Formats: sequence, C-alpha cells, structure tokens
Amino acid sequence: MVIVLKPYATKEQINKLVDNIEKRNVSVQKVIGRDLTILGLIGDTGSIDIDEMTMNEIVHKAMRIQEPFKRANKMFHPEKTIVKVGDAEIGGGKIITIAGPCSVETEDQIIEIARKVKKAGVTFLRGGAFKPRSSPYSFQGLGHEGLDLLAIAKQETGLPIVSEIIATELLDVFEEQVDIIQVGARNMQNFVLLKELGKIDKPILLKRGLSATIEEWLMSAEYIMAEGNQKVILCERGIRTFENYTRNTLDLSAVPAIKRLSHLPIVVDPSHATGMWWMVESMARGAIAVGADGLMVEVHNNPEKALSDGQQSITPDAFSNLMNSLRIIAGAIGRKI
Amino acid sequence: MVIVLKPYATKEQINKLVDNIEKRNVSVQKVIGRDLTILGLIGDTGSIDIDEMTMNEIVHKAMRIQEPFKRANKMFHPEKTIVKVGDAEIGGGKIITIAGPCSVETEDQIIEIARKVKKAGVTFLRGGAFKPRSSPYSFQGLGHEGLDLLAIAKQETGLPIVSEIIATELLDVFEEQVDIIQVGARNMQNFVLLKELGKIDKPILLKRGLSATIEEWLMSAEYIMAEGNQKVILCERGIRTFENYTRNTLDLSAVPAIKRLSHLPIVVDPSHATGMWWMVESMARGAIAVGADGLMVEVHNNPEKALSDGQQSITPDAFSNLMNSLRIIAGAIGRKI
Amino acid sequence: MVIVLKPYATKEQINKLVDNIEKRNVSVQKVIGRDLTILGLIGDTGSIDIDEMTMNEIVHKAMRIQEPFKRANKMFHPEKTIVKVGDAEIGGGKIITIAGPCSVETEDQIIEIARKVKKAGVTFLRGGAFKPRSSPYSFQGLGHEGLDLLAIAKQETGLPIVSEIIATELLDVFEEQVDIIQVGARNMQNFVLLKELGKIDKPILLKRGLSATIEEWLMSAEYIMAEGNQKVILCERGIRTFENYTRNTLDLSAVPAIKRLSHLPIVVDPSHATGMWWMVESMARGAIAVGADGLMVEVHNNPEKALSDGQQSITPDAFSNLMNSLRIIAGAIGRKI
Amino acid sequence: MVIVLKPYATKEQINKLVDNIEKRNVSVQKVIGRDLTILGLIGDTGSIDIDEMTMNEIVHKAMRIQEPFKRANKMFHPEKTIVKVGDAEIGGGKIITIAGPCSVETEDQIIEIARKVKKAGVTFLRGGAFKPRSSPYSFQGLGHEGLDLLAIAKQETGLPIVSEIIATELLDVFEEQVDIIQVGARNMQNFVLLKELGKIDKPILLKRGLSATIEEWLMSAEYIMAEGNQKVILCERGIRTFENYTRNTLDLSAVPAIKRLSHLPIVVDPSHATGMWWMVESMARGAIAVGADGLMVEVHNNPEKALSDGQQSITPDAFSNLMNSLRIIAGAIGRKI
Repeated sequence: MVIVLKPYATKEQINKLVDNIEKRNVSVQKVIGRDLTILGLIGDTGSIDIDEMTMNEIVHKAMRIQEPFKRANKMFHPEKTIVKVGDAEIGGGKIITIAGPCSVETEDQIIEIARKVKKAGVTFLRGGAFKPRSSPYSFQGLGHEGLDLLAIAKQETGLPIVSEIIATELLDVFEEQVDIIQVGARNMQNFVLLKELGKIDKPILLKRGLSATIEEWLMSAEYIMAEGNQKVILCERGIRTFENYTRNTLDLSAVPAIKRLSHLPIVVDPSHATGMWWMVESMARGAIAVGADGLMVEVHNNPEKALSDGQQSITPDAFSNLMNSLRIIAGAIGRKI
Repeated sequence: MVIVLKPYATKEQINKLVDNIEKRNVSVQKVIGRDLTILGLIGDTGSIDIDEMTMNEIVHKAMRIQEPFKRANKMFHPEKTIVKVGDAEIGGGKIITIAGPCSVETEDQIIEIARKVKKAGVTFLRGGAFKPRSSPYSFQGLGHEGLDLLAIAKQETGLPIVSEIIATELLDVFEEQVDIIQVGARNMQNFVLLKELGKIDKPILLKRGLSATIEEWLMSAEYIMAEGNQKVILCERGIRTFENYTRNTLDLSAVPAIKRLSHLPIVVDPSHATGMWWMVESMARGAIAVGADGLMVEVHNNPEKALSDGQQSITPDAFSNLMNSLRIIAGAIGRKI
Repeated sequence: MVIVLKPYATKEQINKLVDNIEKRNVSVQKVIGRDLTILGLIGDTGSIDIDEMTMNEIVHKAMRIQEPFKRANKMFHPEKTIVKVGDAEIGGGKIITIAGPCSVETEDQIIEIARKVKKAGVTFLRGGAFKPRSSPYSFQGLGHEGLDLLAIAKQETGLPIVSEIIATELLDVFEEQVDIIQVGARNMQNFVLLKELGKIDKPILLKRGLSATIEEWLMSAEYIMAEGNQKVILCERGIRTFENYTRNTLDLSAVPAIKRLSHLPIVVDPSHATGMWWMVESMARGAIAVGADGLMVEVHNNPEKALSDGQQSITPDAFSNLMNSLRIIAGAIGRKI
Repeated sequence: MVIVLKPYATKEQINKLVDNIEKRNVSVQKVIGRDLTILGLIGDTGSIDIDEMTMNEIVHKAMRIQEPFKRANKMFHPEKTIVKVGDAEIGGGKIITIAGPCSVETEDQIIEIARKVKKAGVTFLRGGAFKPRSSPYSFQGLGHEGLDLLAIAKQETGLPIVSEIIATELLDVFEEQVDIIQVGARNMQNFVLLKELGKIDKPILLKRGLSATIEEWLMSAEYIMAEGNQKVILCERGIRTFENYTRNTLDLSAVPAIKRLSHLPIVVDPSHATGMWWMVESMARGAIAVGADGLMVEVHNNPEKALSDGQQSITPDAFSNLMNSLRIIAGAIGRKI
C-alpha cells in the first residue's frame, strides 16, 4: 500500500500515523518529495483498512498496489486453469462451444435443437429452465420440468448440460442434473449464492454483471474459489453503456484482459450481449479471433416463435455455417475448435 | 404497440402479419406513409411478444408505447402512496430521515449513535447486520447478532429499524426484527427475493441497482407489488458512470422522474452514492431541494474506526447541523422535516 | 510519481532504471516490500513520461500522485477566484443567475424575455446565436444577426450577455459584443479554440463535455489559463450515462467536487442536462442547495413555438416563482441570490 | 412520425392538434386504442419539430420512426460506398491497413517506420503532426514540420498519408499534403470543421466520438455529406464506459451495426481504444473477424521512447506477424488483405 500525505502534514502527525501503522506488524518507509511525502507500507497490509487510512486528516490518498484477488490471480498461479467436464476441457488448446435455446420450451424443441447443434460439432447444450426476467409478467421458464427436459436431451445426444441457477434452494437439483452451473449477470454479486457454489464440486460459469468492472468480476470468482471450488469459467456477455443500438456493448477486450490478469478460462456470449440475431455470427467470429476459450450461442429451431429472446437466436443451420468459419479463425491463432 | 414496417413489404406479407395479429384479439389499424407503413395495435397487446414481431422479416421496428409497469404506474394510480410505519408516514408532507452506521459493530456503538441521531430528530435507525461486500475477505457484518443489537437500540430509543436483507432464508427473522426491510442495489434484480418480499406485509426499501434504468427499477418494484405487498419505498443511491472521482454518480433527477411516473415514495442515500463524507451534507441538501420524500445517511460516532465504509460516514454532530439546514430547505418547497 | 516494479525484477534491471531516471535530475527512493518494490520519484517529475515508464519491462504500474492541473488547482491557489463582470461577481457570496432562450429568434422575443427575467432578478441574459446541432438539417441559429439582437436587448435592459462561440473566426465579434463567452460541451476539448480564448481578457463559461471527467474538464480550464486568461467559470450541464429517461444525467456532485479541487466558480445548467421543462425547477433548487455559484436556465416566452429546445424551457413566470424558492434555499446555506 | 396522446385528451384538443399539423402539408391518421390514441403523420414530417409536439399538453410522446440521417443511410443508398485513394479502395473486397506512429518525431523515425510497414504490406502511412492532447503541458506534435516529414516518407515509400486535422485554418495545407484527412474523436461534433470538410474533394476518416452513439456518428458523417463530399470513412476507436482497465471500450459491434445502417466503409483503431500495446494484436484480429473494412494501428520503431502514446504502439516486427494472421482471418469471411 502507498499512502500519499497532504503537503501541510507536520512531522509530529506523520510520526503518529507511522507508529499507528507499525503497531500492526507492517513496516513503513518514507519517501519525502518536493511537494508531497509518501509512505510505502511493507508487509501484510491485509490488516490495514484503506478507508481508515483515507479518513486520517493528513492523508491525501491511499492506494493498494496489488490486485485484491488472490486465487484468481495469474501472478500467484501462473499456470492456466483447465476445467474438465466429461471428455471436454475448457481453457486448453481446443475451443469449446455451448449452444441451445434461451428457454427450454418442449421436449420436441430441445431434442431437435440438441441433435442439430450436436451434428454441427457443439460441445455443450444450454437451455434456460429458471429465467430471471425484468418483468414479473414475462415467461419465467418451465422450472423443474425444464431441467427434466434437458436431462432427456442429454440422454438422447450425450451432450452435457449448461443451465442457470437463480437461488440457493435449487442447489441440490442443479448439482444432480446440470454439468456446468451458470450464474447469470444479475446474480454476479449475489454473494450468498456464490458462497454456496464454492462449496460444491461442479464447474461454475460466471457471467459478468452488466456494470461489473473486470476487477469486481474476478472478485466474484474469488468468492467461489475462496470456499474451495476452483472450477470457475468466466463469461463475457456485454456491459451497459450509453449506446443503446445494441442491447449491451460486448466488451471483447475483456478477453485479453482476463488472460493477462487471471488463469481462469473465459468464454463469450454474443447473443445476450447484442440482443440481435443478425449480429451474432460476426461477434462470435470476433470472440474467437481475440482469443476466447469458448463461445455460448443461442440457437433456436424457430426463433420467431421462441418464448424468450427469440430476437437474439440463430437457427441450427446458421450455427453450423458459423462453426465452419470459426474453425479457420481458430487455426489463425494456433487453436482448434 | 406500434409496428413500423420495412418499405419493401408487399401487400400480401402485410396482410399475413395483420391476420396473425388479429387472431389474438387485437385489432390493427394501418397508417400508410410516404416511405413507411405503420401498424397501430388496439386492444390488450400483452399477449403480443415484441421479440416475435421484430423477428418478422417485414418489420423494421416494434415499440410498446405504454410503460410496462402497472401497479407502480401513476397513470393507473394517481394518488400518492403513503407508507405508514408506526407513527411515521413516508411519502406524505413530512420528510423522513434514516440514519445510522453502515455496519452494526458493538452494543455501545449502536446505542450511542441511536441516541444521538434521535436527539437530532431522526425518524428511523439504520444499521447493517448482513453486509454484501465485493471482497470475500472484507468484514461481512455481525449477522444475527447485529439484528439483536439493533433490537436493543430500538428498545432504548424507540426508533424503528431499517436493515438490509440478502437472502430469502432470512425472511422470517427480518419480518420479526426489522421495521423496514432494505433490498440493496446488488439485489435489485434478485427476483426470487423480490417475489418473497411481495408476500409479506412489511415496508420494503428498494435501492436502485448500480446500472438500473428508472424503468427497470420500477419493474423490480412491480415484482414486489404483483405478489401483493404495495408498501414499496424507492431509494436512489447513485448509478455507475464513467466518472470515478465519486464512487457513483448520484442521479438526483431520478427524484422528479419517479414523482412523474409513479405514486411510490422515494428517498435518497447520498452516503453510498458519493462514498465521501465531505460530500454527504451538500448532496443531502440537494436531495431535499429536488423533492425527495426522505433521506438515508450514514452516521458513525467514530468514522475513522468504522469497520466498513467509514469514509462515507458523518458524525452525529454533523448530522445534527445538517438537519437544521434541511428544515429551511424543506420549508422552501412547502414541506416539513 | 510512484513506480511499482514487477516481482521478478533483478537488482541489475532496477539499478539501470534508477540510473536512467536520476539522469533527469529526479532522485529516487526505493521501498522494498514483501512482494513488490516501489520507487518514489522526488523532484520535478514533469520531464518523466508516464508512458515511457510503463513500457519498461520491469514496471508493473506508474502513477502520478498529484493532479495534473496546476493553475486551476486549489492546492496551489487556495483563494477562491471571483470573476467580475460589470457590477456582478461570480464565485462570491452572492449566487448569480443566467436566463434566456436557447436560440435568439426575433427582436420582440429576446426583448420580451430579457425584460421579464430582469424583473425576476436575473443577473445575465443568455441567448444562442450560433447553435451547434447534431443534425445538419436543424435550425443553426441566426448567427451575427442573433448577436445584434442580443446587443439591442442589452441596451434595453442593461443585462450583460452570455452567448456560445463555436469557432475561432468569431473571436473578434464575440470579444466586442458578448460579456461572457460560452464554450459548449461539444467544444470542451477543442484545444485550438481554448488556446485562443486564453489570449483574451474576457470571462469564459466552460461547459463540461458530455463524457468529460472532472479532471479532464479542469485540464480544459488549464488550457485557457495557461495562455493567460484566468477568468474561467465552470458549468455543469449533465453527463452521458446509460440512463436515457433524461437527456443527460445532471451530476450535482460535481459541484462539491470542484469546490474541493479548484478555486474556480461553478454554475449549473439544469435545462440542457435534463432536457425536460418540468424537471428544471426541481433541479435548479438542487443545484443551489449543493452549493453552486450560479444557475443557467432556459427561459422562453412561448416554449411551444421555440425554434430549438423548447422542450427544456420554462416560462418567465415559472422562472420568477423559481427565484423565490431559490432565495430561501440560498439562505439555508448562508448565501444570497 | 408517431404521436402518442395522453389518455384524457378531449376530442376538441385532438382536432385542434390535427388541424395544426395538417396545415403543414402532412396528413394525419388516427389510431384509437383502448387506453391511448396515436396519430400517424404521413408526408414530409421534416417541417414538424418533435420538441414542439412534445410540448403540447395532450402529447405523451412523439417519436420519429425513420433514422434522421439520409445520405449516409443504406435504406436510400443500398450500394456500398467504395472510397478510392490512388490505387487503393476502401470498402471493397480487400481490407486495407493504416499504420504508423502516433506522432511524427524525426525524419529518420518516420522513414524507418514507413519502410518497415510497407514491407509488411500496409496500404497507408499514418502519423500525427497536430496532436490534440488533454494537457496543455504535453507534446502537441511537430505541426507543419510533421506534415513535411510525412511528405518525405511518402516520396520514399509511395505510401499515401493519413493525418489528423484540428482546425479549419489548416484545410489548405491538408488538402495539399494529406491523402486521407482524419477527424479525431474530440472533433467529431466540431460542426464548423465538418462543414468545411464537406466542401472539399478528399476522403475523410471520421473517428467516433468518445461518447457518441452510432446515430450521432452517422449524423456527423451527414454534415460532411450534406455539403457535397461523399467520401467518408468511419473509424471505431473505443467508447467511454465505466470500465477503466482499458483506456476505452472498443465497441466491435459497431461494425455490423454500421454495415446494416449505412453504405459507408468502416475501419477500426484498436490502439487508441485499448491504450495498451499487448492488446492491439488480439483486438486487431477481432476487428477483421467482425467484418471491418480496414484497420488503423499504431506502429513505432521504439515504443519506449515515443513522444506520445508509446504505450499503445507495437513494433514493426509485431505488425508484420499480425498481418500474417489477419490474412487467414480475412479468408475465413471471404475477403483479402
């Protein structure tokens, strides 16, 4: 931690502050500048509260100089995390894909889509059973029945399942029926839920909150990891900005940023980010080109009739074509898909 | 709903779409413009999905022209909602105030603060027992013990209690021990929690999410109200913007906006919004001047030693002085405090 | 400046960097931490480029610890700047007001408005002659004729004139005909224009850019001041955020922020910020309550027929009523209006 | 235009409004809904001011349903614009690249870089001569000398020149010495400058403003095109958001958005957007994958010693490698580079 003092701080005041800090087993080195004096704190500054420092009348600014996340931090764990799910590996040389409808609607629907995306080479089947919707009057998903239909589709195709959890009460059933548990953007800082997910042994797909900084996102991963579960997969899905032509602004620069800061794998969801089917393919290609470890795409056999978010779904045929161009792009950066 | 068609839509395509819509007991009126054709939908368009319309190949744009919130909507409930808590009324002519520490720390602390803010004329005591913190390594509140200490402070001073809930599991204890249940910004779209809060008979203080639009905020109120509980108090607490000099940007224009759109009362929290104690008094005065129904301020007897968010707390003396200037400002707009 | 080194930096690399820095007459003090080493730079670090430092392979982060603005900085000029215009003083104990139409339209219009706002106690008359509009097809103002009409209104009422400049070519005529030259939000970083305005002896009203941080805004003031002209008045007019219920989000916390960082006066324009006439009065009261030195309000005798931005204008009668409540609020914080 | 009336509007009031509108040669069709009445305006609504409508006491909302840009609009000009500069074509099947230093510094520097990027297959040489900098104390570019050095580099290599203009006074010299005139993000709404650029016959590279919506950006293109110059190339360079890990947030979804809305070509500048050299290559690959017509990259022979923005520059060798992967990605979407 670095503490910048105000110019008029007296020697006496400075000594008092330094004494106060050194009592906590942190040593202090003074850097006396022309206009400003800086204190460099050496040792485990975890016990020093930045707020307490800033409240001191002679302190101009106090800054931590290390990232606040530890388990998610590449500096302390330089090796990439590879999350294994059955035969698939997320975060390795091979890029994975997750596809399926926003909401599970009927058995026919989910099985048809599952078969088609499987044929196109997909790694995981996604489908929403419990849907968080802005309006209480919108379709909220089939709930437990939706999970059961996903289980049938898994049986039919062998595809492992990704689905979103919205409450701790559902933990047991998700642990049993789902292969990767998704935490949606709105729950990224539902810390009660994150802590519970940290206690189980299942991969967690943690979507970035609508207005979450990269640091906050990694701190949410840290909540899960601090409880024991290290199998966290990050998912960029667009942030809220002033631009409202697209639903959100897909922040593809988050991919190289995460790669630099963390050892965790990152996938990209272009469907929710843009909210428009005709953008999905372009942005999916962009995601692979910038180095994402995977892609999550909404695919619906009949987007016009989808009960939720049809507008952002592509057809199985479009998905299949997309996969072809993705293979070439993956090759351009030395990866496979 | 208004649907704008693409210029090259053929008569046949238009008729097909109109037929499709009219099957759902909605009548359609065509407005044929020079370049564009518009369909005006008349009747209960609740059954028409805007996404389904937009997916249609001849549709350029589909827009709802009514606000999607109903129970929270002033258009349908022109009378102001006044939430009663004991003797206090929120949303009436008298402005209310809520003060107390970010976190309850000790019995002495909470009682001392409670006594002092009571003397300054406060209406409610606030104190955090369960604290949602960005870092898993930060102080997370005293939990149930914190609620017990608040109960003691209430007994000592008679001040009703405001405290934040973070999980549905805590509902019973909050119903018993807390007078106004606060939903924090991070849980504004925790719909599972909102639905449960809608089933009880307690006032809910619903904080605006960091990146929630006014419409989304009112839709979250709608979640509570749709389940039966009409006692919702909104709380503006700053939104996330590009400016990072302040922690968030306090959006005081939300106050007149809410007054125009809704009948629900609105209070303002300048402490969390700005994150800096030396701004709190100015912004509190601003909040009353723009017409807020109440104020929520962090007050700590020893801000330098606070276990959380000391930086944004003011002292009981400062609070007492603040109240004096607020009384004059309230008078300027025909209200009391 | 503080430079944080990467953990694996070798002694040799560090010495090379330190030598390199000390060649520029800056001395370096090392703070060796458990995980990190920090360099504190002492002396005039103006010659050290932060980018050059960051590019060095052993540097983790380089941070300036002082604000980059000097002439606008309260730390170096603790006394408040009071800008005098005729008998009026901006930034002193008395709050000033600026009112008038968005655009000057006709002689009758501007004279009628000028008389009415004068009667209500206004300090300055505003009126746009050269209008920057997002669309090339919108009314662009009367130009030179507009300035002439403002001159007539000034003659009739004695009110000094505030009007916006949009190009350096207009500098001579503005110097002659206008009492306070306004720089609009879109030109806040038109550095060529700012430099020219720094060479004249006229008060400049510098509006905050739509997405300008407080620091960037003060840096733009610095551009004017660095050329000699110290008469800069800042004007908060709303920033762009994700919220689009209001045109922009009025950032009233900028007022206490500027008061803490700078000695320059600050006024608030609630009309452009909100874009809606029915919000102007509330937000104007808020602006005075948070401590602004002045207010700039759009007033039109016939808002429905205004050629630009009628939607955000209030009538002279509304303005007169507003002044009454502002007087009480100013009193609450020990000021006059 | 669609006008939504308030529910309590009387027949008389409605008729008065309709009469008022029809006087302007616009016909009106009424759509009478259950709760609301809508007016559909047919004809040239250019003469109807949206503000005037909104001010009317019975109007709830007034919305234009067509994009306000005309010349830049794909709806009215379905064919892609291809801008020709010498042998190069921007907006055709072949992707172009622009590379060079942020600032021109010396003859040796610019010639060395020019030769190296030419060897790597670049289409245009960029270099800043007049630099808009946030601080008046930063290096502001070599000015006219910088343009002369670019001319020498052009003579040496044959590469056409791209450089930024910052004032109308420089128009003559830019017309003579520069092949594509760049308008920087800060000047995107310097309408005086845009109008002048519209009167010449030179390609204009129009960067997106930091907080400009896609619509505002196209309206700025419209300013140039309305004066006669149709050779506008758009350049996405990052928008300002709450995230400050990167300097700005590169909005790659702007590429498919522009392709859908407009016929103008669009290039992407990943260097300014991210502000970090180690992100440039990833984001450049992303830009090509999403469909950009070109790329603008900062290349410096000695990034550590660059006088401006060295932190975001890559070396000529890195650029050369980048080009190899871009060729493969371009191939994946049926283009060349």
